[in-house]
Amino acid sequence: MKQRANRQVRLKSRPLGIPQAEHFEIVEAPAPEPSDGQILVRNIYLSVEPAMRGWISAVANYSEPVELGAVMRSLAVGRVEESRNPDFHPGEYVTGMFGGQDYAAVDAKGIQRKVGVSGLPISTSLGVLGLNGLTAYFALLDVGQPKTGDTVAVSTAAGAVGSCVGQIARIKGCRTVGIAGGPDKVRMCREDFRYDAAVDYKANDFESVLDAACAGGVDVYFDNTAGPVSDSVMRRLNVGARVVICGTASIASWDPIPQGPRVERHLLVKRAQMRGFLIFDYAQRFPEAIRELESWVRSGQIRYREEDRLAGMRARSSSNKGSSNCPTTTMRTEAANRGLSVA
Amino acid sequence: MKQRANRQVRLKSRPLGIPQAEHFEIVEAPAPEPSDGQILVRNIYLSVEPAMRGWISAVANYSEPVELGAVMRSLAVGRVEESRNPDFHPGEYVTGMFGGQDYAAVDAKGIQRKVGVSGLPISTSLGVLGLNGLTAYFALLDVGQPKTGDTVAVSTAAGAVGSCVGQIARIKGCRTVGIAGGPDKVRMCREDFRYDAAVDYKANDFESVLDAACAGGVDVYFDNTAGPVSDSVMRRLNVGARVVICGTASIASWDPIPQGPRVERHLLVKRAQMRGFLIFDYAQRFPEAIRELESWVRSGQIRYREEDRLAGMRARSSSNKGSSNCPTTTMRTEAANRGLSVA
Repeated sequence: MKQRANRQVRLKSRPLGIPQAEHFEIVEAPAPEPSDGQILVRNIYLSVEPAMRGWISAVANYSEPVELGAVMRSLAVGRVEESRNPDFHPGEYVTGMFGGQDYAAVDAKGIQRKVGVSGLPISTSLGVLGLNGLTAYFALLDVGQPKTGDTVAVSTAAGAVGSCVGQIARIKGCRTVGIAGGPDKVRMCREDFRYDAAVDYKANDFESVLDAACAGGVDVYFDNTAGPVSDSVMRRLNVGARVVICGTASIASWDPIPQGPRVERHLLVKRAQMRGFLIFDYAQRFPEAIRELESWVRSGQIRYREEDRLAGMRARSSSNKGSSNCPTTTMRTEAANRGLSVA
Repeated sequence: MKQRANRQVRLKSRPLGIPQAEHFEIVEAPAPEPSDGQILVRNIYLSVEPAMRGWISAVANYSEPVELGAVMRSLAVGRVEESRNPDFHPGEYVTGMFGGQDYAAVDAKGIQRKVGVSGLPISTSLGVLGLNGLTAYFALLDVGQPKTGDTVAVSTAAGAVGSCVGQIARIKGCRTVGIAGGPDKVRMCREDFRYDAAVDYKANDFESVLDAACAGGVDVYFDNTAGPVSDSVMRRLNVGARVVICGTASIASWDPIPQGPRVERHLLVKRAQMRGFLIFDYAQRFPEAIRELESWVRSGQIRYREEDRLAGMRARSSSNKGSSNCPTTTMRTEAANRGLSVA
């Protein structure tokens, strides 16, 4: 068997603030040999996401921190190169936590699903049909519980998760209000993602425009940011409102915990709830959601944008303050660039 | 018909901070005459509660503010003096929002329920079998959803609501942790209300004692205070924890909204929820709760303390920072003092 070089992005040190290239290093190692029952995957796209900030933090989180010196944790879509498992065959495409590297040898339980049979680009398996779309789907529908006629406000409304949330809420008959930063994203909210109203939180008239957009109050607030944007929305909650805590993109650091206006009075007076959401709790139900998301994408009811960064496996983090306002960000490995003609 | 004098506690001005006697005045008016279908109630006990602060505030709340010059809103238990309604008879005892006055003429829909037939003191209808007990019951069971083996932490644990919460949680097989201020209340938590652990938030070793008391983390936090006590408990939430926002006794003013540590990260990482509660939303279900509470009181599974302030109808507010740590506070009218021998 030919010896393959396996470039790996490893965590070199833990960032105190925003992660930078210096916190990672590229190391070349021999590609692993799949053992019995395993498959060898050649990564095509890596998903780069805000959650990575948590994964490389030493502070307790919902998952174990990535060890120093270990390959960076990353969701990926790749092609089966070799298989020692009868359920997988060379040439198939699969997703999983294959990490920031060219090759991964994984057990069947390390495979999330086979992709690429729907005719949609395989990159969607890391975006609108991946964790972003799944997060939007379960967090909005299960936690937010939107009802026809509800006003649903979304922060990072033009982002990978937010844009999907807005469109699912629209499908469910809600009035949708997108909150995003700057005129380009606001236009994208209106034109691409068809929010009923879009509000620029960076504009001087943010509060008055938000007032007009949410004249009847807010029934569901899908929060990807925390911070001042959320503080503004919290003052506009209706009785029985649901606040989905999905991300905290506007908070640079939680150590120490930053101060903000207390929420207890809003929650009490409005009998409202705030609830945290983590997509991995819903793994058992991914198939049903992917089926429905796929049908919405096909029918044009859900539109998506992807930003494809060919990075030649250079460690690059998009986990900065603005990141979750970006559409789905994937990092192509050279395999993708060379038309999948892996040598 | 004899002319009865009706002393009324009227709202004279809106307090900016803690309500004082000067914000009220006592006015003598003729007692109302019941019209057809109405009954005339002679108040025996008035309930004095923290929620009154909200009722007399001009700031939007869950209920309309008491108008300036109007009789102070108050839950009361009284005796039927006259009846022009076939469903009520002189000598029966009834509860309702009869207000801070000797006499009220009310329709049948203004009557919450008849009391005094259970053999328990009629004062309990304003306490453990009134809004306090009902609040504990629905807020804990419906919002907190305690499961056997859960750790349930309660702030103002020796108070009228808190003490009942702790005991219902105990009945449901939970480990109960009471948080109260000062050694007397902590002792009361342990000895009277049988919390598994009780913690003095005023003590220097509060954090370490709380750590020990909540060694396995907190599954349900029943919050009557907001403020620093809650901030400490929030750091100890378990995955899936439920935080019941029932009161904000430690916050002197919400205008402007005070700052505190942001809660979003706790909620996200722990997939926890905070949810506001208001007892009036549960009015349809009061009878079932009262039946169950009554059986627990009779069997000794729920103990209660009452503080009976004979105030001769002097306006006296207990709605200060410490108040919700007090047991049920009622204000007896002179009718009660004179052995109900109303002249």
